[in-house]
Amino acid sequence: MTKVIKGGIVVTADRQVQADILIEGETIKEIGPDLKGDEYIDAEGAYVIPGGIDPHTHLEMPFMGTTAAETFETGTWAAAAGGTTMVIDFCLPGADGSIKNAINEWHRKSAPQICSDIGYHMAITGWNEQIFDEMKYAVDAGVNSFKHFMAYKGALMVEDDEMFASFSRCVELGALPMVHAENGDLVDLMQKKFLAEGKTGPEWHARSRPPEFEGEATNRAITVADAAGTPLYVVHVSCEQAHEAIRRARQKGMRVYGEPLVQFLTLDHDEYLSTDWDHSARRVMSPPFRGREFHDSLWAGLQSGSLQVVATDHCAFTTEQKRMGLNDFTKIPNGTNGLEERLAVLWTQGVETGRLTPEEFVAVTSTNIARILNIYPKKGAIMPGADADIVVWDPKISKTISASNHKSIIDYNVFEGTKVTAQARYTLSRGEVIWAWGQNSQPQPGRGRFVPRPAFNSAATALSKWKALNSPRSVQRDPLNIPAGV
Amino acid sequence: MTKVIKGGIVVTADRQVQADILIEGETIKEIGPDLKGDEYIDAEGAYVIPGGIDPHTHLEMPFMGTTAAETFETGTWAAAAGGTTMVIDFCLPGADGSIKNAINEWHRKSAPQICSDIGYHMAITGWNEQIFDEMKYAVDAGVNSFKHFMAYKGALMVEDDEMFASFSRCVELGALPMVHAENGDLVDLMQKKFLAEGKTGPEWHARSRPPEFEGEATNRAITVADAAGTPLYVVHVSCEQAHEAIRRARQKGMRVYGEPLVQFLTLDHDEYLSTDWDHSARRVMSPPFRGREFHDSLWAGLQSGSLQVVATDHCAFTTEQKRMGLNDFTKIPNGTNGLEERLAVLWTQGVETGRLTPEEFVAVTSTNIARILNIYPKKGAIMPGADADIVVWDPKISKTISASNHKSIIDYNVFEGTKVTAQARYTLSRGEVIWAWGQNSQPQPGRGRFVPRPAFNSAATALSKWKALNSPRSVQRDPLNIPAGV
Amino acid sequence: MTKVIKGGIVVTADRQVQADILIEGETIKEIGPDLKGDEYIDAEGAYVIPGGIDPHTHLEMPFMGTTAAETFETGTWAAAAGGTTMVIDFCLPGADGSIKNAINEWHRKSAPQICSDIGYHMAITGWNEQIFDEMKYAVDAGVNSFKHFMAYKGALMVEDDEMFASFSRCVELGALPMVHAENGDLVDLMQKKFLAEGKTGPEWHARSRPPEFEGEATNRAITVADAAGTPLYVVHVSCEQAHEAIRRARQKGMRVYGEPLVQFLTLDHDEYLSTDWDHSARRVMSPPFRGREFHDSLWAGLQSGSLQVVATDHCAFTTEQKRMGLNDFTKIPNGTNGLEERLAVLWTQGVETGRLTPEEFVAVTSTNIARILNIYPKKGAIMPGADADIVVWDPKISKTISASNHKSIIDYNVFEGTKVTAQARYTLSRGEVIWAWGQNSQPQPGRGRFVPRPAFNSAATALSKWKALNSPRSVQRDPLNIPAGV
Amino acid sequence: MTKVIKGGIVVTADRQVQADILIEGETIKEIGPDLKGDEYIDAEGAYVIPGGIDPHTHLEMPFMGTTAAETFETGTWAAAAGGTTMVIDFCLPGADGSIKNAINEWHRKSAPQICSDIGYHMAITGWNEQIFDEMKYAVDAGVNSFKHFMAYKGALMVEDDEMFASFSRCVELGALPMVHAENGDLVDLMQKKFLAEGKTGPEWHARSRPPEFEGEATNRAITVADAAGTPLYVVHVSCEQAHEAIRRARQKGMRVYGEPLVQFLTLDHDEYLSTDWDHSARRVMSPPFRGREFHDSLWAGLQSGSLQVVATDHCAFTTEQKRMGLNDFTKIPNGTNGLEERLAVLWTQGVETGRLTPEEFVAVTSTNIARILNIYPKKGAIMPGADADIVVWDPKISKTISASNHKSIIDYNVFEGTKVTAQARYTLSRGEVIWAWGQNSQPQPGRGRFVPRPAFNSAATALSKWKALNSPRSVQRDPLNIPAGV
Ligand SMILES: [Zn+2]
Ligand SMILES: [Zn+2]
Ligand SMILES: [Zn+2]
Ligand SMILES: [Zn+2]
Ligand SMILES: [Zn+2]
Ligand SMILES: [Zn+2]
Ligand SMILES: [Zn+2]
Ligand SMILES: [Zn+2]
Repeated sequence: MTKVIKGGIVVTADRQVQADILIEGETIKEIGPDLKGDEYIDAEGAYVIPGGIDPHTHLEMPFMGTTAAETFETGTWAAAAGGTTMVIDFCLPGADGSIKNAINEWHRKSAPQICSDIGYHMAITGWNEQIFDEMKYAVDAGVNSFKHFMAYKGALMVEDDEMFASFSRCVELGALPMVHAENGDLVDLMQKKFLAEGKTGPEWHARSRPPEFEGEATNRAITVADAAGTPLYVVHVSCEQAHEAIRRARQKGMRVYGEPLVQFLTLDHDEYLSTDWDHSARRVMSPPFRGREFHDSLWAGLQSGSLQVVATDHCAFTTEQKRMGLNDFTKIPNGTNGLEERLAVLWTQGVETGRLTPEEFVAVTSTNIARILNIYPKKGAIMPGADADIVVWDPKISKTISASNHKSIIDYNVFEGTKVTAQARYTLSRGEVIWAWGQNSQPQPGRGRFVPRPAFNSAATALSKWKALNSPRSVQRDPLNIPAGV
Repeated sequence: MTKVIKGGIVVTADRQVQADILIEGETIKEIGPDLKGDEYIDAEGAYVIPGGIDPHTHLEMPFMGTTAAETFETGTWAAAAGGTTMVIDFCLPGADGSIKNAINEWHRKSAPQICSDIGYHMAITGWNEQIFDEMKYAVDAGVNSFKHFMAYKGALMVEDDEMFASFSRCVELGALPMVHAENGDLVDLMQKKFLAEGKTGPEWHARSRPPEFEGEATNRAITVADAAGTPLYVVHVSCEQAHEAIRRARQKGMRVYGEPLVQFLTLDHDEYLSTDWDHSARRVMSPPFRGREFHDSLWAGLQSGSLQVVATDHCAFTTEQKRMGLNDFTKIPNGTNGLEERLAVLWTQGVETGRLTPEEFVAVTSTNIARILNIYPKKGAIMPGADADIVVWDPKISKTISASNHKSIIDYNVFEGTKVTAQARYTLSRGEVIWAWGQNSQPQPGRGRFVPRPAFNSAATALSKWKALNSPRSVQRDPLNIPAGV
Repeated sequence: MTKVIKGGIVVTADRQVQADILIEGETIKEIGPDLKGDEYIDAEGAYVIPGGIDPHTHLEMPFMGTTAAETFETGTWAAAAGGTTMVIDFCLPGADGSIKNAINEWHRKSAPQICSDIGYHMAITGWNEQIFDEMKYAVDAGVNSFKHFMAYKGALMVEDDEMFASFSRCVELGALPMVHAENGDLVDLMQKKFLAEGKTGPEWHARSRPPEFEGEATNRAITVADAAGTPLYVVHVSCEQAHEAIRRARQKGMRVYGEPLVQFLTLDHDEYLSTDWDHSARRVMSPPFRGREFHDSLWAGLQSGSLQVVATDHCAFTTEQKRMGLNDFTKIPNGTNGLEERLAVLWTQGVETGRLTPEEFVAVTSTNIARILNIYPKKGAIMPGADADIVVWDPKISKTISASNHKSIIDYNVFEGTKVTAQARYTLSRGEVIWAWGQNSQPQPGRGRFVPRPAFNSAATALSKWKALNSPRSVQRDPLNIPAGV
Repeated sequence: MTKVIKGGIVVTADRQVQADILIEGETIKEIGPDLKGDEYIDAEGAYVIPGGIDPHTHLEMPFMGTTAAETFETGTWAAAAGGTTMVIDFCLPGADGSIKNAINEWHRKSAPQICSDIGYHMAITGWNEQIFDEMKYAVDAGVNSFKHFMAYKGALMVEDDEMFASFSRCVELGALPMVHAENGDLVDLMQKKFLAEGKTGPEWHARSRPPEFEGEATNRAITVADAAGTPLYVVHVSCEQAHEAIRRARQKGMRVYGEPLVQFLTLDHDEYLSTDWDHSARRVMSPPFRGREFHDSLWAGLQSGSLQVVATDHCAFTTEQKRMGLNDFTKIPNGTNGLEERLAVLWTQGVETGRLTPEEFVAVTSTNIARILNIYPKKGAIMPGADADIVVWDPKISKTISASNHKSIIDYNVFEGTKVTAQARYTLSRGEVIWAWGQNSQPQPGRGRFVPRPAFNSAATALSKWKALNSPRSVQRDPLNIPAGV
């Protein structure tokens, strides 16, 4: 059976064209004018874009003594409603420390629930021989990226030598290391200092992890990656300090990628100064929202290419869960929503203002991460042969974001009251319409699939070649020029 | 009749894939495995890439009292042999100052000669109402880019207010302004100073136009472009100073593009210190070759995306012509060859070293400029519907560059003796093989076509939207708050 | 007769020490504990600092069709009340273009009026042989600095080649070139554009000369200075863009100085948005006040040494005069007050906040400019032999700045309502108390003297040596290697 | 008894003046023309400058299984011959970890040996309550600076949290933290990696600690210092990466000081490629010499003020000692000579080339560090009341540096063969001539004194004020806005 998306303007990372799209089964068959098919999907007056890929979610993740409330079902359903057709979720080892078991556990949890496709990043939270060995298991299983926490001291944090070991292992495996970049030692000290001073409110969360700590850790991770000879992906870039470190590295030709969150592009740290405790606590995440003076830096990064990907770090806890930290900001579970809102907020505040071109919008929400994670053009593309993960993106549907109408499981929304001027008219996952605006779509848990990702992407391959060619040799010294005693 | 390029690895700006390419007539019909056609072109063991686009040539251009020796025929033929299937040539108004007449003159000269496709940039060398009016003619005629010389005082140079006027006109027309960025006043003063001191040799050419002058002019042009509200394309970026200005602008979200030349990526200003006058004079161009310390900066620009396009500024004069400046370096016709060598040199010193990925190589030699100049994906792409401008790029053919075996008309080669490790096995222009390695191919003058380019590319459109939304308004003052006397 | 300043903390650019100061006649004799003299000046609880030097004033200057209202008498009297004991005033050639006549005219005007010492900078507003010749006259007459306007097109503005010629002449004479750095072409275009659009209010003054225009011109002037081989002094640095250009040059070892104004460190461009026309117009100056986001940049420049001097550009017009531009912002005379307030505002917002040390306060208000202008340690120092230009600076006297209590001749104050927490208890000029807080001091016109300044300061000398040693030589070519025909 | 230094040009950090200097006992009494005294020291044709202060020496320091060969006697004697009248030596705790005992041990060793004055920096090599307590002892004993090693893992290295604790303690005590900035984890990993690969030669020393590791650690230390609210002094800055981090911090107003070594300004890492093992090993120090491309960066830092002090890290081991690392570069004792050569090399390659003014030479060799370490103007100044630590600096004495004629105890010299064009004609320590060129001067061990340094210098005081004023407050939340459960 074939479908034709009819009458829209196809926007990809490299062009805009008025064209129909013919879908056969799960993949795109043809792009061109006047295509025919068994069914038609109306795209008149709309853009037709690759489905969004959110490379940074934490669904049902056990964290800080509780578990993220957003499930694989509600999360992927909210994603679909928002125009996102794939998430890459962070997989954490359990008590046994096994990567293999963690991946299997993630499969067990996600498989029956996911409404669209999924992939994982694997977290490296320590270093030993088992981890070294099982990293290969992960790559063979289609997980080609490894996350390292430089914060959360005493819990997830790894030290520089552990990062170096893991990054070096990534080079061997052709995998991509990622970092959560904040100086965990300093955050820990600040937390203790503030608590000791009786400073317990959520505003102190932000103050315990200032931009300088993020910039420092970003710079350090880049140094480690360069020493190991690997590209690096920096998740949730929130500030100029981290962005500066990334830019500086890139100016030297280093292969470093930066991922601002849609929250960091649009929301302000003054939210933590609300006199309503719940309001502030709901916005607690790490890194925290930053001052408005950083927004321009991040937008310019997307425009100039020094930042490549807009994600969400969607890790949604209920107000009830947030209240675990009523007397102690360090106990507020870290995380906010964003998975459902990402495309609409970015379009409204990015494309509608002229900051981003429509092509850039597609690049930063879908194509770039697909290329970085080596699943392009299966994902992130509209071209013959690609998966038909497609969104009919209607720039005429306005909406005010609210917890009262969102799909997410949680009881609030950090974008509450934000007006957006575009929405997904239809969302297709592998050829199937999984969301249709105003048509009472329902989640289809279990139809999503795990998408394995091959190792050794192009940048990693080139960098390894460069490093090999530029390794120094030992000086050849005549024994006569070496003192006796050797 | 159909052709299939068989067995190669297709490399585009966004991916590599083992696939055949089916060509029907002049365009690409299909990309995929096991395609069938009337004819087969062997690409086993080779890459298959979009034909190179050199956006910066001066063929048969009248300049400095002579005319560039490379003709449209020899130039496009040399291009074909080197894997380049389209050039964008600089069109200069004649004595009458008419843009319209200049375009027609360029058509008259190029049409019977060109072996592959061509486009023009139009030079703006002064400012008056005729120019204002005829800029629209140019755009309507498919010339959507205008070049401004900030050097060559007393000849081509324009002043800041003229640039502003022209840039503003570009905004209205949706055209792209370009600059040759060197401070012409200072160059002129240095030239006079050196000549007055009896310093006449070609080494003084380079010293009369140091990197600082280029950086200054680049920065100034960016300021003018930002004031006018237009993207800007900086041709022949040779040094860190100019690159820094471009990076700094891009970091603020400005839409500035930079074009290093393959010469500037690989050749050194010490060439001007040769005790052989001819050797030095043959390398005289503006800007001149720079110190090796800048090469890394330019390569990193390509890697990080702060520079987008590698061109050649091919403007080839014979040794005889160069000798016009025997007693006065300011009379040496400015220009070098490069059109034929660009791809092979960049591949060898870029891709083979691991500096660039194959995808990046395609991006900077073809795709990026096609997008910037708004002819993508007709040109610069391998996708269904695109022109079949395709090169079968063989990474196993080694060669030493030499005037003795090049196609260019001139009697020397600035890359003389440089070893390259890849060459075009076949070059196709709109589906036709116009070059086949080792098979005694012959130029086919007149088969090339002029390719008109539409205005209002995506970046210009976005920028205009941003500028419109961010224009300030007048303060509303109550007449009571305005002093009497108004 | 001797005087002793007793009981204070002497603060110089390099140290703080509890000490008395013995003055004999016009100069300092000794610094130490328990000094005796004929008279005592009480400095208990106060700091004792070198008198302020304001290197940027325009007293009684004919400008924009009127003459600055502040006279040499009222200006130097206001200065004394504010703790400033020397001003360097800008001397402009008259209609005859003669430097010599201009200096004599300035002497004629200033001599009978000045209450404390004075020097001049000479403006270069064109280029010809007379100017070339008379620059030497100026230097011989003790004027070792020359100002160049890159703005005020059609009036004071000079072109790049004129700047180069004048800068080169400065090198020969050992004089220091200075620039008013704004791109005059672009300002002129913006003014015309806004007026043509009916935008006539004072807010459009600021918008017609954005920070980018200042940054551009600063960068250009630096390039010209580097080409000529001279240090450069950039007056009234208002923004990060100009500061960045200065920093970038200094990072390369270039000898560039930057002078933020106290207004630019503390006042905001939102003042131009006042609905009270007079309020906005009174603050019209060039460059204009900038956004608050730049204040941190300028303060940090003072802290780190990338900016060296805090001046005022005191050029005070009455409200009546400002109203010349009621229907046309380009006709509002450019200039604000500040001479009287500089020290108190800088102390309160700089030293009292911990941004600056007391030593740095002295450096940027007095010592640095004395060194740059080569009159140190006669001025700008507290050491034996130095002129006894000394201020007893009382950090306990609070005051709210107001036109109602200032000494300036004008009818408003741009710092109106600003609280300051320190004032001059006593101001001494060459050993004489010319201001005593609360003691009904009166101006003493005519007691001030012109202070000639020698040429060839230390930085200029070093730079000339460096340039001489690093000049390239011609390549020696064997005639055999030069083609026949030479 | 009085002495007069007659006929020279007195150069201080702020001026040059032809003047005599009258010395009474140990201090300077007067500076002026035609002074009389009991004795005369001829300074005709010479400069008269404050005695050099080398703030970075390791005399007789136990390190890497041996003890630095240079003794307090030979070291201070070599210093005197080279124009340096004070050293600040690094004091290391012994096995008991006691700061108090270490200081006493250093007194015990140095007192009978030193020929001129001395001070100490105290090393913090771990963290516990005893160290916390004894830091106060150190400050009370006149040691106001504490050094932290970020390298030498397993030996001297401290972690980020330990640095933060110590830096915070410094804030309380008004002391200055210093860092040896290299990422010790990464160095350690590289060392192990290279050794495991059989790479044992001294060239691998440099490669195991690349500039990036130094830049990283510098950036990290700055972040820690900023969090703690203290100025920071970075010792032995060798490269642009570290300099960049310092500049970037200073541009934000942070109080960070950088100390390049004279070796890093003039010597090249190619020395490690010598085929003579001894030659390379003798130059092993940490950080190592760097590529020539960094020299310009460091010189420009001195010119622009982003770097403030030129030191030597004099830590001299004999060839015999160096050979401890014959089979393992990690066992080569780290350190080179420089104490004797610093002034002459810096003058020759700095002042004689025009890079530095004579005043800047004095600033970076003496005055700046005296101010930073809060012993100015007792040391580092030529003014009445200052210690008569004075050098008659003769710019006419040429010399080729060689182990055959130096005063240092070691058997080679890393500057061997370097020509210098100036030498100390006389060196005075507290009024006493301790070195006279060509007059067979002899060391006078035991005449030197320990110089205690007070805490709370001006920059630290200002910074503490700024931090206190800019600390955020808790949000006041109405209990009604805090959820029940609190
Ligand atoms: Zn995270
Ligand atoms: Zn996360
Ligand atoms: Zn050009
Ligand atoms: Zn050209
Ligand atoms: Zn001005
Ligand atoms: Zn002025
Ligand atoms: Zn060290
Ligand atoms: Zn050391």
